[in-house]
Amino acid sequence: MPLPDDAQLISVDDHVVEHADVWQDRLPDRHKELGPRVERNELGHDIWHYEGKTFANIGLNAVAGKPREEYGVEPTAYEDMIPGCYDPRERVKDMDLDGIQAQLCFPSMPGFAGSTFFGMDDKDLALACVQAYNDWHIEEWCAAAPERFIPLVLVPLWSPDDAAAEIARTARMGARAVSFSEAPHRLGLPSFNSDHWDPVLAAAQEHSMPLCLHFGSGGVPETSPDAPFAVLIALFGMNSQFTATELLFSPVFRKFPDLRVCLSEGGIGWIPYLLERCDYTWERHRHYLDLELKVPPSEIFRDHIFGCFISDDAGIAALDRIGVEQVMWECDYPHSDSNWPNSRKLLTESLRHLPDDQALAIAETNARRVFSFTGGR
Amino acid sequence: MPLPDDAQLISVDDHVVEHADVWQDRLPDRHKELGPRVERNELGHDIWHYEGKTFANIGLNAVAGKPREEYGVEPTAYEDMIPGCYDPRERVKDMDLDGIQAQLCFPSMPGFAGSTFFGMDDKDLALACVQAYNDWHIEEWCAAAPERFIPLVLVPLWSPDDAAAEIARTARMGARAVSFSEAPHRLGLPSFNSDHWDPVLAAAQEHSMPLCLHFGSGGVPETSPDAPFAVLIALFGMNSQFTATELLFSPVFRKFPDLRVCLSEGGIGWIPYLLERCDYTWERHRHYLDLELKVPPSEIFRDHIFGCFISDDAGIAALDRIGVEQVMWECDYPHSDSNWPNSRKLLTESLRHLPDDQALAIAETNARRVFSFTGGR
Repeated sequence: MPLPDDAQLISVDDHVVEHADVWQDRLPDRHKELGPRVERNELGHDIWHYEGKTFANIGLNAVAGKPREEYGVEPTAYEDMIPGCYDPRERVKDMDLDGIQAQLCFPSMPGFAGSTFFGMDDKDLALACVQAYNDWHIEEWCAAAPERFIPLVLVPLWSPDDAAAEIARTARMGARAVSFSEAPHRLGLPSFNSDHWDPVLAAAQEHSMPLCLHFGSGGVPETSPDAPFAVLIALFGMNSQFTATELLFSPVFRKFPDLRVCLSEGGIGWIPYLLERCDYTWERHRHYLDLELKVPPSEIFRDHIFGCFISDDAGIAALDRIGVEQVMWECDYPHSDSNWPNSRKLLTESLRHLPDDQALAIAETNARRVFSFTGGR
Repeated sequence: MPLPDDAQLISVDDHVVEHADVWQDRLPDRHKELGPRVERNELGHDIWHYEGKTFANIGLNAVAGKPREEYGVEPTAYEDMIPGCYDPRERVKDMDLDGIQAQLCFPSMPGFAGSTFFGMDDKDLALACVQAYNDWHIEEWCAAAPERFIPLVLVPLWSPDDAAAEIARTARMGARAVSFSEAPHRLGLPSFNSDHWDPVLAAAQEHSMPLCLHFGSGGVPETSPDAPFAVLIALFGMNSQFTATELLFSPVFRKFPDLRVCLSEGGIGWIPYLLERCDYTWERHRHYLDLELKVPPSEIFRDHIFGCFISDDAGIAALDRIGVEQVMWECDYPHSDSNWPNSRKLLTESLRHLPDDQALAIAETNARRVFSFTGGR
């Protein structure tokens, strides 16, 4: 058995669907009226309302349990989803079905890195929304089964100082990771090359909270206007290739040598190519470009960046070039790229050629180390 | 010896620098005044002039023979370059130095796929410029050593019918391949999903001329505005990943089952990941997306698309997942990513673990088959 029966799978990319009262339960009274709330419309659809705007998709891509033929039909009401999408106790039952010990869950309505709140006009309300999400996520979702969830928090993207304070506040509550944008410059914010994010990066480093940069938290890959939607889906991992390259040549890890970054839902099979290409670029072009980077980018990667995959046999076959310690596994429940409830079976199959210790590192121990998570052990 | 001493290296991506009289020698009299010509300015720089515009870089990135510390300094006059850049007889001597039998050369001033001419206001002049380039390339450059050069032609991107006629015209002159845009939609033209290009694709298929889609012929990867230039260089291969995915999910190869496409200067190490990801996407999402594609994208790839690399050990290590028949080698003379005059030595080193027949396929016989080229044998 390459993956021991007693291995406790840790999935580092799953998704919560926020229940209808997450914000109304927790926002200060002055913000309740404009803050997010769900209303059911005449078609029976549950719609988020905030600041006079509406957001029709309460459970984007929450298709777990449906046949593939129905994947494209997004749920329009809570009862269209299996309860594990929005109820942590039901989620745990679904994890048990699939042999998964713990999940790291990203938000739905707020956007993977909280870009919905970044788009709000009233930034006082927006900060309250970030904090309400984090409080709900830690005190209600994760607290329902602390051995089964790794708390992942949002930050106010518009204020690095407030973001640093929110990291410190949530760290005291038990948060273990920060969901941040993979490409802040694509949101109209300064890039990782600037000093703008130093307070955020310093706080993440100080509290040993990795930044999780989920695909789509900095836009989507550009396709031709008439390309089938499948092209966009197939290209998800491009974003992580861009982000990894930006980070490797940026000053981020020189300034914050203990900071760690996870490329969530980015895949891993491209990593050997990209690291070789980055090193080739560094070797040939650093002299005249006057690069500040004094070591090959691949060395920076191995100290700081983690690749995450749902299913990626090309990457598993090239583990020696990636580094076994740099790879973590994802279930992606309840999205359409997930293999739930057959994740454990398929992961075991995918890792069958590896030595036990390598399979265990990918399925469990790397994630425990990266997120300082001991739940279940 | 994994690469036999008598292997004749065929490089499928190199670059010519057009000499100062290419267009003035060949344009009809009515077009000479506005057509491209070189003038030396007061700083001693050789500058292209056409249609009242100037183009300062006569030999973009033509740095062969310079130390790496000087790579960033683009040549500003012909005498800044080694003569092999613009003189085919000198080029052959440089190929002999490096143990290379033949090259497939892309243009410089016209842009890899002729986008300079696409940007001209006078499309009658522009067509004459395309034809003058092709005539020069075949009758002067390649004819100087027909056993050493594979003729690669441009087409008028603004007119599919004229482009088809130019393919037919140059095929009769011995042209073996067409340089086309990797992403025509990024030039403001219809995408590969449209029927717009059918005349071009039909002509390329009819004359067994592969389309060579060079990195940069459809824009450059988008980086953050303050990223070091190294990020852009490292990300060259992203363009080919986008192009491959667009093509695989497009109707192109269903309509033209004998058409072949080369991803020039795109690298190969990412191919196993991308094919697996495309197949995963197809497997899970084709039902509700109603994709017309009836076989996995990886099957389409293996019948139609060729990966090309300068140096790519990650790709060589994953050849079984790419397909040995799908890979060709590139020298990239005289650009800064080239290893000239040590290309053969480094390629031999890179292929040392392969069986002789696989090394020979990559270094020579695949390119001979794809381009129907027998020069030297």
